[in-house]
Amino acid sequence: MTEFDTLTRLEAIGDEAMAGNIPPRWDIGGNVNGGALLAVATEGLRRITGRPDPISVTAHYLAPGREGPVEVRGEVVKAGRQFATATGALRQGERDVLRVLGTFGDLSQMAGGYRHVSGQPPLLPPIEECVARDVAAPEVPFQEKLRLVLDPACAGFFHGAKSGTAEMQGWISFADDRPLDTLALVLIADALPPAVFHLDGVVGWVPTLELTVHVRAVPAPGPLRVRISSRFVHDGMFEEDGEYWDESGELVAQSRQLALLPRG
Amino acid sequence: MTEFDTLTRLEAIGDEAMAGNIPPRWDIGGNVNGGALLAVATEGLRRITGRPDPISVTAHYLAPGREGPVEVRGEVVKAGRQFATATGALRQGERDVLRVLGTFGDLSQMAGGYRHVSGQPPLLPPIEECVARDVAAPEVPFQEKLRLVLDPACAGFFHGAKSGTAEMQGWISFADDRPLDTLALVLIADALPPAVFHLDGVVGWVPTLELTVHVRAVPAPGPLRVRISSRFVHDGMFEEDGEYWDESGELVAQSRQLALLPRG
Repeated sequence: MTEFDTLTRLEAIGDEAMAGNIPPRWDIGGNVNGGALLAVATEGLRRITGRPDPISVTAHYLAPGREGPVEVRGEVVKAGRQFATATGALRQGERDVLRVLGTFGDLSQMAGGYRHVSGQPPLLPPIEECVARDVAAPEVPFQEKLRLVLDPACAGFFHGAKSGTAEMQGWISFADDRPLDTLALVLIADALPPAVFHLDGVVGWVPTLELTVHVRAVPAPGPLRVRISSRFVHDGMFEEDGEYWDESGELVAQSRQLALLPRG
Repeated sequence: MTEFDTLTRLEAIGDEAMAGNIPPRWDIGGNVNGGALLAVATEGLRRITGRPDPISVTAHYLAPGREGPVEVRGEVVKAGRQFATATGALRQGERDVLRVLGTFGDLSQMAGGYRHVSGQPPLLPPIEECVARDVAAPEVPFQEKLRLVLDPACAGFFHGAKSGTAEMQGWISFADDRPLDTLALVLIADALPPAVFHLDGVVGWVPTLELTVHVRAVPAPGPLRVRISSRFVHDGMFEEDGEYWDESGELVAQSRQLALLPRG
C-alpha cells in the first residue's frame, strides 16, 4: 500500500465515525502537515457522502496534529443529486485537531461544456532543470513523502537564500509514484514550504488558521506544476494562494489559506 | 435602525440558537443574496464566540434563502486566547439554508507589525466618474441596499454589453450610508453582479456552492474599492475572487467563491 493510502486509511467505528492512524514522518518538527490532516478528514467525509471527489473543502485548524491514532467524525447535511455536503471533525484523544466543511461530487460527470480560461500555468523550466533539495532538513520528515523540485529562481530557499518575493513554483508528485487523484490534491494544496519564507525577516512556524481547496478536475497522469504566492502580509496574518496544473495543461485545483506570521 | 442592522438582528432563543427575520428586498429574483445570508449567520457565530470580528468564514449553500423568519444555530468548538472558532447553520423552516464554519478574533489587537504587500488596489476613476445603474432591474431588489458604481470599462453590463473579460470593478457603500464594519464586509464579499456575466453566452442564475471571506483589517470610513474576477470557467464551475480596499489604501477583505455555471 502506498504511503498516502496508508495515511488516509480509515475504518468505520459507527455510523458516522471512522478510526485511522497517522504514520510517522508526515510531520514538520513534530506537527503533522496541515494538508495531510485535511486529506485524512476529507477521506472520512468523502466516504460518508459516497461521492468520489472533494469539490470544495475548508478546514479550520484548532490544535497541532501528531502521529498516532485519529478519529474522523462526520455528518452529511445535504445529499443532493449532483453534490453532497458534510461537516466533520478530526480528533486525537479528547480534542479536535481540525473542523472541516466540504462539498463532494463526481467530477467525471461535470467534464466539458462552456469554457473560458484566462489563467496560465506557471512558466517553469523542464522538470530536469529544476532543483531538488540537496541539503539535509531533518526537522522536515514530511518532505520525504513528495518529490518536489523548484524553479531555480526560487530554489535558493533550500540554502537559506531569500528571493524577496513571496512566491514558490515547481513540479510535484509523490515520492513513491502513487498516482495523483482528487484526494491527493487536498494534500498537495499545503505541501510546499511557505512562500513567505522568501521574505526577509520571516522565519519560524507559520500556523495555518484556515485552508480551502477547490478541486476543479481529475488530474491527468504525471507530475503537477504548482505555484504558490502571498501578496498581503500584514497585521499578523497572510494569505497564501496556490494553483495546481496537470500534464494536460488543466488547472486541477486552487487553494487559499489564511495563516499567522511568526510572533517576534 | 439601518437596513443592514435590521437584516442581521438576532434574538437568543437558547444557549446556542438565535432567531431573526430576513426583511423583504434582500433578494435577487426571490432568492436572498448569498452575502446577506452569510452576514446573518456570521453575526450569530460572532455573538456566541464573543469576539468582535470575523477573521475567516466559509459557507456552503444548501438551499435558496427566502425573506421571513430565520434561525441561526451555532457551537463554539474552540475558544482560545487570540481566536475562537465556531460552526453553525442558518435554517428556515425545517431545512438548512447554509452551513458555516468561522474563526473570530479582534482585529484591532492585531494591527501593525511586519508588513509586505505586493498587491495593488484596482485602478479606478474617481467615484464621480464611475457609472451607477440607470436602467430598471425590478428582478434585483437587492441592488437598492448598496450604492455600487462601476468603472466605465465594465459598466456596459448595466445595458447588456459584455466586455468579454470576467472582471468587474467599482466603488461600493451602503445606500443608507451605514458605516462599513467587519461584519458588513461579509455582505460586500458577494454583492456585485457575477464577473462571468461579462462573458458571451453566460446568462442566468449562477448558484454559489461555497464562499470564503477573509477579513484582514477594520475598514476606514468611506466607500470601498472592489474588484472581482473569474479566471477559470470550465467543467460546469467557476471561481470568483474578490478584493476589497478601504479609503486608506488597505486591503480589508478577500473573497473566493466556487459557483455553478447556468445549465444549458
